[in-house]
Amino acid sequence: MRIMFIGDIVGSPGRDIWKTYAARIRSKFHQQVTIVNGENAAGGKGITKKIYHELLESGADMLTMGNHTWDKKEIFDFIDGAEKMVRPANFPPGTPGEGIRYLKINKQTVAILNLQGRTFMPAIDCPFQKADLLVSEAGKVTKNIFVDFHAEATSEKQAMAWYLDGRVSAVIGTHTHVPTADERILPQGTAYLSDVGMTGPYDGILGMEKDVVINRFLTNLPARFEVSKGREQLNGVYFDIDENTGKATLIKRVHISEDAPFFD
Amino acid sequence: MRIMFIGDIVGSPGRDIWKTYAARIRSKFHQQVTIVNGENAAGGKGITKKIYHELLESGADMLTMGNHTWDKKEIFDFIDGAEKMVRPANFPPGTPGEGIRYLKINKQTVAILNLQGRTFMPAIDCPFQKADLLVSEAGKVTKNIFVDFHAEATSEKQAMAWYLDGRVSAVIGTHTHVPTADERILPQGTAYLSDVGMTGPYDGILGMEKDVVINRFLTNLPARFEVSKGREQLNGVYFDIDENTGKATLIKRVHISEDAPFFD
Amino acid sequence: MRIMFIGDIVGSPGRDIWKTYAARIRSKFHQQVTIVNGENAAGGKGITKKIYHELLESGADMLTMGNHTWDKKEIFDFIDGAEKMVRPANFPPGTPGEGIRYLKINKQTVAILNLQGRTFMPAIDCPFQKADLLVSEAGKVTKNIFVDFHAEATSEKQAMAWYLDGRVSAVIGTHTHVPTADERILPQGTAYLSDVGMTGPYDGILGMEKDVVINRFLTNLPARFEVSKGREQLNGVYFDIDENTGKATLIKRVHISEDAPFFD
Amino acid sequence: MRIMFIGDIVGSPGRDIWKTYAARIRSKFHQQVTIVNGENAAGGKGITKKIYHELLESGADMLTMGNHTWDKKEIFDFIDGAEKMVRPANFPPGTPGEGIRYLKINKQTVAILNLQGRTFMPAIDCPFQKADLLVSEAGKVTKNIFVDFHAEATSEKQAMAWYLDGRVSAVIGTHTHVPTADERILPQGTAYLSDVGMTGPYDGILGMEKDVVINRFLTNLPARFEVSKGREQLNGVYFDIDENTGKATLIKRVHISEDAPFFD
Ligand SMILES: [Fe+2]
Ligand SMILES: [Fe+2]
Ligand SMILES: [Fe+2]
Ligand SMILES: [Fe+2]
Ligand SMILES: [Fe+2]
Ligand SMILES: [Fe+2]
Ligand SMILES: [Fe+2]
Ligand SMILES: [Fe+2]
Repeated sequence: MRIMFIGDIVGSPGRDIWKTYAARIRSKFHQQVTIVNGENAAGGKGITKKIYHELLESGADMLTMGNHTWDKKEIFDFIDGAEKMVRPANFPPGTPGEGIRYLKINKQTVAILNLQGRTFMPAIDCPFQKADLLVSEAGKVTKNIFVDFHAEATSEKQAMAWYLDGRVSAVIGTHTHVPTADERILPQGTAYLSDVGMTGPYDGILGMEKDVVINRFLTNLPARFEVSKGREQLNGVYFDIDENTGKATLIKRVHISEDAPFFD
Repeated sequence: MRIMFIGDIVGSPGRDIWKTYAARIRSKFHQQVTIVNGENAAGGKGITKKIYHELLESGADMLTMGNHTWDKKEIFDFIDGAEKMVRPANFPPGTPGEGIRYLKINKQTVAILNLQGRTFMPAIDCPFQKADLLVSEAGKVTKNIFVDFHAEATSEKQAMAWYLDGRVSAVIGTHTHVPTADERILPQGTAYLSDVGMTGPYDGILGMEKDVVINRFLTNLPARFEVSKGREQLNGVYFDIDENTGKATLIKRVHISEDAPFFD
Repeated sequence: MRIMFIGDIVGSPGRDIWKTYAARIRSKFHQQVTIVNGENAAGGKGITKKIYHELLESGADMLTMGNHTWDKKEIFDFIDGAEKMVRPANFPPGTPGEGIRYLKINKQTVAILNLQGRTFMPAIDCPFQKADLLVSEAGKVTKNIFVDFHAEATSEKQAMAWYLDGRVSAVIGTHTHVPTADERILPQGTAYLSDVGMTGPYDGILGMEKDVVINRFLTNLPARFEVSKGREQLNGVYFDIDENTGKATLIKRVHISEDAPFFD
Repeated sequence: MRIMFIGDIVGSPGRDIWKTYAARIRSKFHQQVTIVNGENAAGGKGITKKIYHELLESGADMLTMGNHTWDKKEIFDFIDGAEKMVRPANFPPGTPGEGIRYLKINKQTVAILNLQGRTFMPAIDCPFQKADLLVSEAGKVTKNIFVDFHAEATSEKQAMAWYLDGRVSAVIGTHTHVPTADERILPQGTAYLSDVGMTGPYDGILGMEKDVVINRFLTNLPARFEVSKGREQLNGVYFDIDENTGKATLIKRVHISEDAPFFD
């Protein structure tokens, strides 16, 4: 089974390039499952119900989220019913939404798990403890387990990957909005990439208007970040799972931008 | 002019793989200048005078450093005389060592500047203010300016790159020990890569023994990190500069590991 | 000379209790100078021009600020002309407003300096370097120098106090909104208090509605903090300066709340 | 019942002044229970078995700890058998030692609970969730519950106090090493003080040699902190509990230094 994972969709440029290439990506790579990180899909911060449905309709089978999950207030109105969305599972008990969900693909089931790191990020429940719990739970259902680990620090991301090596099919990082070049299959069969990068503006800073961000670093004065305009990029990764074992057999990055045009 | 930059050498595995490939890299890529980040060269933490000379003898023309510069006490005894080493320039006035140095290569001069970020890192002097000052100073000497921006946050790294675009030949990030896949030439001619990654153990966590790091995340108890053993990797990047303009014309990553063997 | 310093005025409860007691405090303690921290005076976040004038009219001779200086956008319209306001001096060159100002009191001059810490706070310019510069500059004008050091960490506050001991008349901390009980005169004559505390709600959390803050700690979900209602408190400190030497001779805290009523 | 709580003993100066005044404090204040924070008792970092016994022999009935619990390696050899010591309860399951212990005093039982904050501190398990669990457990045994909340941020400390108001007898903060002046009894009967301060050097920075700490702020270079020498201070707090209800009826601070001599 092949799974394609698309990095954080940032605002309308992100949705735009995603919709432009979604079908072409599928016909080129033939993935069975498409997962999209949607934490920045609405104006760079959070997601609305409308955009949730828009992303599903344009080809996503499941959305993962992150620290921006809660930025748009309406999320609290629809997340419990959003059966194609996972938010970081290690928010405390009682948090709306689900941290793990299952997708049926023909005769196969894929578990999609979202976790959030704590290094340089808010202190929530331990992602490692939560991973133990949920991976063990998911293991009763399927061997095909995908983890979007939304985290800042490379140490924490690598630690999670090695911790789960052999227990899940893939650990792919999100949050830094920069794709890393360290894709590999760990010795026990888990595909790993520290960060898949983002999908949206190509000439911004993490997708935001660059002059405002630079000015913020220069002055330390408050700033209102806006999604950048102009050229766009898409970053994703796909990996193949041997369905009998849940082990990954291949992992490859996908990048589309003016510097790296897409060829069907 | 072609410049090769090798990411943070971590401990003896880092020095080992560097020495194994240094000459082969030079004969394959024909770079005129080789710069190596050495902040982790001595047991993962800092550098000694012996290792400083060892790295120069094995092919480095200049060493850049980072937050670990000061980890080995003897640095204070030799850094002022270490003419082939730059440490982050935005440590406060009075700090031993230099933040910018110049290399003569035939008829050309290259300025090598080291800066350190402040997001998720200790509060030192502003790297942007310092960049303004030193880039302007270097500009009186040469158009070929290389910046190793040792920083954690992708936002700060991208901000620095866009801030210096057109004023320096390249901004290459270090510190996260994970190579990023976002190499590009910015619109005004500055080559950019968020992080070049590290050179050393392939199966550790940022180069350190993985079980100890994982255990640290699980328990939050003190741990003594050791450089990992076993397989090794090398990460670098090279870029070409048009010497008449100082603009970059090409940037490419180099990665060597068992998963990606080196071909001469 | 006696100087009274009133801790961060938080929202309308803070302005209310300040106005209720300002005159009574002056007739009881007979201070020559009254300084008020106003960074939270407008709804807990920042200050407006109207409130700036309101605080001056009710008895403040000078306002100090802090990290919340910039929260209300209109500050940028009036801060340059606000001759009775200092904002943290170690924001980068070019920042609107002034970090040090002078008050004439009869034949005396008092320098009022505002600095901001960096531990657990945003990375701005070094407060110690800036203190050196401005204390030396102020020393040409007067021996009576007051420093509001707006900082989080007790280590940084104590370090600043010991660093300036004998060079300024007083270092008083703000920002934590909790009064400390460590008032003392350091060996070289500088009066010191780690934090003067806040002036506003008595039953909130740092002045904010407590249930919202507690819920934020429990859930890690976004929350909209509001200034708390109900009972009020005022926290201040006064100190006496020998005008011939600039040395402090006495420092005492002032606290008013239902648990500690004010007696004229 | 009266309980005396002595703030973090720092190194030999802390142990020295504690031993000098322990008996005199007891004969003056007549407390039934004496609790001492011992996280810095051994050279400023951690505690040894020898010092653990030394503190008990000189009058402590129970020791609380904090983030420095683990600094001396030998703690792992004796903490499980240290029946008069609690370490922060919200370290993850499996951590050596206990986070809550019970003291029998005549016919009364007191529960002593240690928790650690997460704001500006390492991410461990949620102290609020853990408090819920343990306060409910302790409530089956006794109404007299003492909480040492070892935390940095005043917001988190106040949040914990208000959260537990009426459910425990007292919430007293430690960790900043500076005594606060906000002692009070909250509306539902919980005695509260944001920080009790430290016991040890009077002229250091948080108990450490001040020149080294100042230099660290000035240079950002590594430094080896040593416990300061010279004058000493002791900071404590006592509170009375109505044993029938577990509610606090009085809370008062104790401070001893050259500026505030002890009178029997
Ligand atoms: Fe994102
Ligand atoms: Fe994120
Ligand atoms: Fe490094
Ligand atoms: Fe580093
Ligand atoms: Fe404030
Ligand atoms: Fe503040
Ligand atoms: Fe302590
Ligand atoms: Fe502590």
